[in-house]
Amino acid sequence: MTGVVRATYEIHGADARTRATALAVEQSHELPTEFAPDAALASLGVVVDFQQRSDSLAIAVVEYPEGLAGAELPQLLVVLLGNVSLQDGIRLVDIELPDSLVAAVGGGTRLGADGIRRVLGITDRPLLATALKPVGISATDLASMAAELAIGGIDVIKDDQGLANQGWAPFRERVLRVSEAVREANHASGNSAVYLPALAGPVELFEERLALVGEAGAGGILAMPGISGFDSMRRAATLLADDAIIMAHPSFLGGFTASLTHGIAPDVLFGPIMRVAGADAVIFPSSGGRFSLTREQCAAIAESSRKPFSGIPATIPAPGGGMSVARVPELVELYGQDVLLLIGADLHRGGDLRRSAAAFREAAVAAS
Amino acid sequence: MTGVVRATYEIHGADARTRATALAVEQSHELPTEFAPDAALASLGVVVDFQQRSDSLAIAVVEYPEGLAGAELPQLLVVLLGNVSLQDGIRLVDIELPDSLVAAVGGGTRLGADGIRRVLGITDRPLLATALKPVGISATDLASMAAELAIGGIDVIKDDQGLANQGWAPFRERVLRVSEAVREANHASGNSAVYLPALAGPVELFEERLALVGEAGAGGILAMPGISGFDSMRRAATLLADDAIIMAHPSFLGGFTASLTHGIAPDVLFGPIMRVAGADAVIFPSSGGRFSLTREQCAAIAESSRKPFSGIPATIPAPGGGMSVARVPELVELYGQDVLLLIGADLHRGGDLRRSAAAFREAAVAAS
Repeated sequence: MTGVVRATYEIHGADARTRATALAVEQSHELPTEFAPDAALASLGVVVDFQQRSDSLAIAVVEYPEGLAGAELPQLLVVLLGNVSLQDGIRLVDIELPDSLVAAVGGGTRLGADGIRRVLGITDRPLLATALKPVGISATDLASMAAELAIGGIDVIKDDQGLANQGWAPFRERVLRVSEAVREANHASGNSAVYLPALAGPVELFEERLALVGEAGAGGILAMPGISGFDSMRRAATLLADDAIIMAHPSFLGGFTASLTHGIAPDVLFGPIMRVAGADAVIFPSSGGRFSLTREQCAAIAESSRKPFSGIPATIPAPGGGMSVARVPELVELYGQDVLLLIGADLHRGGDLRRSAAAFREAAVAAS
Repeated sequence: MTGVVRATYEIHGADARTRATALAVEQSHELPTEFAPDAALASLGVVVDFQQRSDSLAIAVVEYPEGLAGAELPQLLVVLLGNVSLQDGIRLVDIELPDSLVAAVGGGTRLGADGIRRVLGITDRPLLATALKPVGISATDLASMAAELAIGGIDVIKDDQGLANQGWAPFRERVLRVSEAVREANHASGNSAVYLPALAGPVELFEERLALVGEAGAGGILAMPGISGFDSMRRAATLLADDAIIMAHPSFLGGFTASLTHGIAPDVLFGPIMRVAGADAVIFPSSGGRFSLTREQCAAIAESSRKPFSGIPATIPAPGGGMSVARVPELVELYGQDVLLLIGADLHRGGDLRRSAAAFREAAVAAS
């Protein structure tokens, strides 16, 4: 497909055909067609398919001229859902992008699932992730915690999203200390754990903090596109080393996924949108934990992280949010082998992080 | 109030008391309290008030230690709603911030309603705004359009949110041409219109484009915090000239406001959150137009734009999204005199923008 951004929307409620046409205009001209000069016809979104599925649900496919996005990721999001996010009953359920637009915004995912495995040197089992927490303890204590987890066998040790630049463990000190602790733990254990600091600070410190991640020898970053904007994640991908992992956290994105009749389908938000914005691993709240997505929605997220999408590499799904070691077999059955299992609090049960991490690793090996 | 971020949540559904306690933990430690070291008690969120209002609704007030936000706006958003945005039935309905935190993130709104009136030199009537559209016409044509609107009497002429850096009217050319056209129109008419270019481009071009806004003599910017992140708007406020207006657009924010049982109450999102993030004027979709907010929600937004909030100046509400000149009396009755009325497409009716703008101005004067 060349030259066209194709978006599929569910339209819930009455008058769906009229609303589909209005949507295409809203997301392009934002001006009734009778007022638009002929010269602007080349920038108008058009409904190319419409199907009324039931009294209260229709599916509309809209094609937008690629030029509307102006070769910039922020504007692509504006075109896909900017204004109509404010209208009831509109839900974005699929997107297709021209290769030229994907290339213009940097190509999306760099490492992806395969690249993360290559960096970690692990091909034969589900990957393991955890979070350093709670906020409120010192950088030294977080570093000790990271060392135990790395020695125990966790692959990806990320900051909790609650860690920023608070006084208890300031960003610079934390990144330096934890990176070193993980490096030493790897040296002692022969493991290849990586540490991903959370990066969602002030705009003016973005490049400085990214540079520190590199200098410290951290393995990449935990990005929060809901907080910092998706373009900030894309930009990070252009600045980080080629082997640095970008893991996306869903913080502040729940507005889009809470409703079945509005927003963005979770498998689109945590699938293609994260992929075009440069994520390598994508955290989402797994069913059966503390959050709201269903088992079917979660399976769809895993599916969409892998499906062919404009030549962008597959990301690795990272289900989390209240998972446990006991559930590893079930999670692997649901998500498949190519998954980055994220377990946080459950590893603290029993008070021995190294042992918990080892049990987590054993469970993953047994399920592989 | 010092040292505490206080957030009020509606909790919809069963087990609200248990969920309130879990929410306070989720948004601070993200770790069950029994696993947290004593040293971390100072960083734990606490439910300080809980009221069960009905079988399906409770109100919980949570106090978070100020230190959790780490003196950074992005992390404040993480604390207020980051993870629980992904839980059903949680809705943020009020926030109070310590003055020290507001100061640390730059003090919020600079000009606000009073400052915009001072810059424009207009004290005695509702203010008038419109948008340049549609995308797809040239910068020269947009500049001609802006001149007609400025001569006709519009105060604030903003880019449509659909204008970015597309080939039809690239950012640099557009900002230069439209700024000059508005300056010349003011010279000829004696009006004091300002032009606000839309600024939501790639992260790496943020400062360059902001600088161009200043060099071109544009009157400020149209910011899109839902696309670029709220911190990007805060940062713009630190870089723009003192008399530059920051107008916030609600693009891509509708996920938060679509539900009455989830997300963020519109009067919090378009009130305190926009104020702490530095907006001067706040666009929101007015009732009776193309979008979904009710009359009561809109009245509450106007109220919250003006209420005392940590010493941050009042913003001016900018209701839009399908408004018309015929509705000006009703809008002024709903929102009061201190409003920035945003009318777009309706001014194109009849094909004479200058005349439409003049009619808009007359209607506002008549309603004042």
